[in-house]
Amino acid sequence: MFTFEILKSDESTNARLGRMTTAHGEVNTPAFMPVATQATVKSLGPEEISDMGFEMIIVNAYHLYLRPGHRTIEKLGGLHKFMSWNKSITTDSGGYQVLSLSKTRKIKNEGILFRSHLDGSEHLFTPEKCIEIQEALGVDIMMSLDECPPYPSTREYMRKSVELTTRWARLSKESKKRTDNALFGIVQGGVFDELREKSAFELMEIDFDGYAVGGLGIGEDQEQTYEVTEKTLSRLPVDKPRYLMGLGKPEDIVTAVAMGVDLFDCVIPTRNARNGTLFTSNGKLVIKNAQFAQDERPIEEGCGCYTCRTFSRAYLRHLYIAKETLVLRLLTLHNLYFYSELMRGIRESIISGDFSKFLTRVQSMGGK
Amino acid sequence: MFTFEILKSDESTNARLGRMTTAHGEVNTPAFMPVATQATVKSLGPEEISDMGFEMIIVNAYHLYLRPGHRTIEKLGGLHKFMSWNKSITTDSGGYQVLSLSKTRKIKNEGILFRSHLDGSEHLFTPEKCIEIQEALGVDIMMSLDECPPYPSTREYMRKSVELTTRWARLSKESKKRTDNALFGIVQGGVFDELREKSAFELMEIDFDGYAVGGLGIGEDQEQTYEVTEKTLSRLPVDKPRYLMGLGKPEDIVTAVAMGVDLFDCVIPTRNARNGTLFTSNGKLVIKNAQFAQDERPIEEGCGCYTCRTFSRAYLRHLYIAKETLVLRLLTLHNLYFYSELMRGIRESIISGDFSKFLTRVQSMGGK
Repeated sequence: MFTFEILKSDESTNARLGRMTTAHGEVNTPAFMPVATQATVKSLGPEEISDMGFEMIIVNAYHLYLRPGHRTIEKLGGLHKFMSWNKSITTDSGGYQVLSLSKTRKIKNEGILFRSHLDGSEHLFTPEKCIEIQEALGVDIMMSLDECPPYPSTREYMRKSVELTTRWARLSKESKKRTDNALFGIVQGGVFDELREKSAFELMEIDFDGYAVGGLGIGEDQEQTYEVTEKTLSRLPVDKPRYLMGLGKPEDIVTAVAMGVDLFDCVIPTRNARNGTLFTSNGKLVIKNAQFAQDERPIEEGCGCYTCRTFSRAYLRHLYIAKETLVLRLLTLHNLYFYSELMRGIRESIISGDFSKFLTRVQSMGGK
Repeated sequence: MFTFEILKSDESTNARLGRMTTAHGEVNTPAFMPVATQATVKSLGPEEISDMGFEMIIVNAYHLYLRPGHRTIEKLGGLHKFMSWNKSITTDSGGYQVLSLSKTRKIKNEGILFRSHLDGSEHLFTPEKCIEIQEALGVDIMMSLDECPPYPSTREYMRKSVELTTRWARLSKESKKRTDNALFGIVQGGVFDELREKSAFELMEIDFDGYAVGGLGIGEDQEQTYEVTEKTLSRLPVDKPRYLMGLGKPEDIVTAVAMGVDLFDCVIPTRNARNGTLFTSNGKLVIKNAQFAQDERPIEEGCGCYTCRTFSRAYLRHLYIAKETLVLRLLTLHNLYFYSELMRGIRESIISGDFSKFLTRVQSMGGK
């Protein structure tokens, strides 16, 4: 099952408050999906994610296909049971991972031929294969296989690429067997407006449960990202969920919400945490800096996360400098809590009619 | 404050049920102290340690002296506050760490000259300095500085070493200023019975709050370890706590409890966990083994730890193979839970009069 309803539209922007319902419960939108690449949000247990209020995570089909194998997870009762997460799961189909991780990739008409980043073995991802993998995992939202060209690409290359992505999207939809989950199409076209338009219309003809904007945040500048996102969204159906893939600085999220995006995923909060960079409402804080060596304060005064309620900056800096793995968990908890509060703030401000104010406030944090 | 009372003595062995009371609460003995070398039990938060029932941990004064510095921790309100652990803490004085970690160490009459394993800087640990460090940290049980000679050492070397350890023990006691904590002396003497006897009697003359048996588990065989432990214990006062330093396979612990040991610390449960080796009542389990790739069972059926209640062997193996840091926490939780249950079993069987049976059962696990 999969439904999406819009509960409220903001009056002065295109932001909307919505609710997706999957076989694993409700997902209140706009929503952020923590990234659980290899079936774990790095360093955290599943209940720590749900306790923060996250209702959906994103896992990588590419990684799980290579290790431990989708058939293994299927035999073990599916991905939810495997990782002990009983809320909703989205999987990326693998197109982006093949671009970013595989040493060699060859785009063919029938799919993508690539070498595993783990052992160099050769694999072919076809649209049908990617659906088969995601259905074996038993996830709630599957993504259709797309070609994700590098940036920059020529208009001519991109035109052919969009044609391929459309063809694969159709084959993805046709090969879908399960009825208990959703399939999203991914709009490509790079920074070329007419190709984005073409991609969006062709995918809408096929008719997906939701639409993603893909291929952004890979080198183009922020202005282009926003422009492409806004134009693409204006062409997508209002009543279907829209997912902006991979982008997620706080200012990007509020800006995209104002354009009408419902769903986000991004490694920034988790990866930054592991690098010791923390989000606060006063800007970023780099925990390894010497200035925190004797700082008794929490990362952020008033923050309700476990880390801030329990430990000082001085202790966290000590753990970070001493390379103690506990710090990865503590910092990840803080950054994801910051994101959960950000999304809660977005949803609550749409309800109260204060979203524009909230938007301006978060956008002004961008420079810090 | 520091008190120790014996609540019950076993009838057929020298095992005893006791209770230490420190400024930070009760420690029911026989007790195992998880090792928190750098002010963290690697990968775990403090409430995870106390939730398992542990009432005391051991931290390394040597490590905290070098980083972040005992004065820093003192300024931040002491070690308990620094690491957010409000139960009891023991610190090792550093003699053993200097032996095992420092590239060069020079034993002088006034103390140990060594180079930091972190940056090569030169430091002198005197007995007085070690008390100063431990008092600045504000721990509940301090250890006096000892010389921990390598194994094997000659009888002649060991005789001089014991003389030095006795002199340092006296200086340690004389330099103690705080009255809210305890100081233990460490019996040395290697495998030479008359030197162990000499060491024990000299320390008893100085009169400590408790006595540790040190310098074991560094190369001598198990039979020697047990023999030295048993003989040394027979010379120590019955009414003071006895601490066997650094030794802690489950079979070692029950055997030493039967000889009258009250307190243990050991890196085995935590270090083994990080290497993927898990304790179960059926022997050890190596999680990376291929046989667990599709094993739906928990590490141990019926185990009440979070890991066993939540995840399968297959998932844990996946995390281990994929080098996901979450697995360090999950496996450490299991092994420490196993140790907490072991100590609970020891205490309960002394109460019920079944300790001898419990002893035989755990000793028989030793070969697995």
